[in-house]
Amino acid sequence: PNVLVLPGDGIGKEITPEAVKVLEAVLKGRSTSLNFEYGLIGGAAIDEVGKALPDATLAAAQAADAILLGAVGGPKWETLPAQERPELGGLLKIRKALSLYANIRPVKMSPMLVDASTLRPEVVKDVDLVVLRELTGGLYFGEKGRKTNPTSAYDILIYTEEEIRRIVELGFQMAVKRTGRLCSVDKANVLESSRLWREITVEIAKDYPGVDLTHMYVDNAAMQLVLRPNQFDVIVTENMFGDILTDLASMLGGSIGLVPSASLNGKKGLYEPSHGSAPDIAGKNIANPLATILSGALMLRYSFDLEEEAQMIEQAVEAVLAEGYRTPDLAKPGDKVLGTREMGNAIV
Amino acid sequence: PNVLVLPGDGIGKEITPEAVKVLEAVLKGRSTSLNFEYGLIGGAAIDEVGKALPDATLAAAQAADAILLGAVGGPKWETLPAQERPELGGLLKIRKALSLYANIRPVKMSPMLVDASTLRPEVVKDVDLVVLRELTGGLYFGEKGRKTNPTSAYDILIYTEEEIRRIVELGFQMAVKRTGRLCSVDKANVLESSRLWREITVEIAKDYPGVDLTHMYVDNAAMQLVLRPNQFDVIVTENMFGDILTDLASMLGGSIGLVPSASLNGKKGLYEPSHGSAPDIAGKNIANPLATILSGALMLRYSFDLEEEAQMIEQAVEAVLAEGYRTPDLAKPGDKVLGTREMGNAIV
Ligand SMILES: CC(C)[C@H](C(=O)O)[C@@H](O)C(=O)O
Ligand SMILES: CC(C)[C@H](C(=O)O)[C@@H](O)C(=O)O
Repeated sequence: PNVLVLPGDGIGKEITPEAVKVLEAVLKGRSTSLNFEYGLIGGAAIDEVGKALPDATLAAAQAADAILLGAVGGPKWETLPAQERPELGGLLKIRKALSLYANIRPVKMSPMLVDASTLRPEVVKDVDLVVLRELTGGLYFGEKGRKTNPTSAYDILIYTEEEIRRIVELGFQMAVKRTGRLCSVDKANVLESSRLWREITVEIAKDYPGVDLTHMYVDNAAMQLVLRPNQFDVIVTENMFGDILTDLASMLGGSIGLVPSASLNGKKGLYEPSHGSAPDIAGKNIANPLATILSGALMLRYSFDLEEEAQMIEQAVEAVLAEGYRTPDLAKPGDKVLGTREMGNAIV
Repeated sequence: PNVLVLPGDGIGKEITPEAVKVLEAVLKGRSTSLNFEYGLIGGAAIDEVGKALPDATLAAAQAADAILLGAVGGPKWETLPAQERPELGGLLKIRKALSLYANIRPVKMSPMLVDASTLRPEVVKDVDLVVLRELTGGLYFGEKGRKTNPTSAYDILIYTEEEIRRIVELGFQMAVKRTGRLCSVDKANVLESSRLWREITVEIAKDYPGVDLTHMYVDNAAMQLVLRPNQFDVIVTENMFGDILTDLASMLGGSIGLVPSASLNGKKGLYEPSHGSAPDIAGKNIANPLATILSGALMLRYSFDLEEEAQMIEQAVEAVLAEGYRTPDLAKPGDKVLGTREMGNAIV
């Protein structure tokens, strides 16, 4: 299969090679081998060809079997018109163009990182949850603009029944495969879109009598994630709430530097770390490649059905952490600190 | 001055009397005395007069100098059309009708409650921040509705320049009075309303050269609140982000049961706990009245300029906690557990 690698900006350029290295190592001598191609996205693409998502990149993404993305954005491109910037013009555009509506962000506490969390060990030690975030609808893609007299700006949060149905269905399916608990997060006491979301969720629930479905308001969900994270197994929610809750949930796994993500549409997948391009630490060989490496594991699992190989990567990460190796972002006194490349080598 | 008390639903009926008791006690023999009147709101008003915000309540609120509110909502009224429910038809309606655009939620860790937090003591022990939430705009009050072909539901996030300006100005003023740090939270990499918010904030900043202004995306802000809460002093943000971040921030103060709120419009104030009506524990004399009692302190401070008396209440809460008294929600083994009324008496 063909994998399109889009390093993007900042640390994206340093962390994607480590994931490629690990994918090559784990597949060596196995029946599946991956063919890596490279493309431009984000600020790097703006600089080279004047567009955050060049046509060639989109065509390559459409042709590829899976995509591995680093991160996009940085101060250099922040003065451009919003629609042209790396985020809107690159990342959101490729998500939408490929209809990658299902964003999966698993957060599992590693026994080795319990001490890296700012939450108490007893609260986070057993955290094992997945946030399923709708990725191609809502405020992100609704009409937006300015008005005059008086000057104002607006963004429309809109969801069709179909958009809600496909992501919530997936939530139920994931819950069935895990412990059977699904928490749908909305703000149905205020938003009409949330009320439609809840109606559809309640309707779909009839097809999954074995799933224990709860509904939670987003404000309460943010609080409950910190108060009793173990109550959660699968969380399903709309785009903006999911954006906020996944960053928050990453704190329960010790660090956002460990949270991979898969963005799927039933056929193709795009895999990227949940963190950003961190321009402040770029180019110094100190970025943590683990979320990208673990995104590679998700690629093997979801795009190529290589569960065993996916677990080999996940276990390698655990083993390296267990040996006391850490990138600087995770290091505590006494740890053995590794650079980006050295961490990739250790996993290999 | 006249204070309108709106107990509302669930535990609202139990916690407001305790706040009234404390306000009466602290003002006894002082030059200001408060005259308490009572009104209906939320489910209680629906049951009695068929409307979540009766005309009589609104008229009384308009005439009063300040309002003390308990909480609204409960399963009993969840099947009503959304616009008639306690939340939309009661709480949001009175906020809007009185133009209470500035919601202040201070979160300060009490030394006594460091152990009640699920965050590590060293992370939360010095937390002292205020979230300033815009309360009458955004997704909450924008046009909302359904469409057919295909079936969809929408909510409009809209802010006028003027709405942004007045709340952000207040944020700068609060920052000046505190440690001079203001963090404006938005999602300017995606939302047009956030871009207008940021432009206006940058413009206002010119009038406050002494304030150290930072901008943070809402997803990162949720993460940073858990990672390094001490970096925050005053946070200013729009309605929905503020809803989520205040519930989250309450965890940094040990419990949402301690977070008061003031909703102001420059003239009048409405004071309510940040928590909800908790129908599951209502009527059992076990609800925690402290957030409501502390909301009474905010009333003295912001509506009646009685700083000394406000601090007397705040110190009484500290003292009672220091003596080891706790309501059940805060109790750890060895604590002296008090009921709602008994906690009110202890503060008195
Ligand atoms: C960079 C930004 C547009 C993006 C988002 O908000 O989706 C990021 O925060 C993420 O979560 O992938
Ligand atoms: C009850 C609900 C409508 C309300 C809100 O979202 O504003 C509550 O969560 C709050 O924060 O005061």
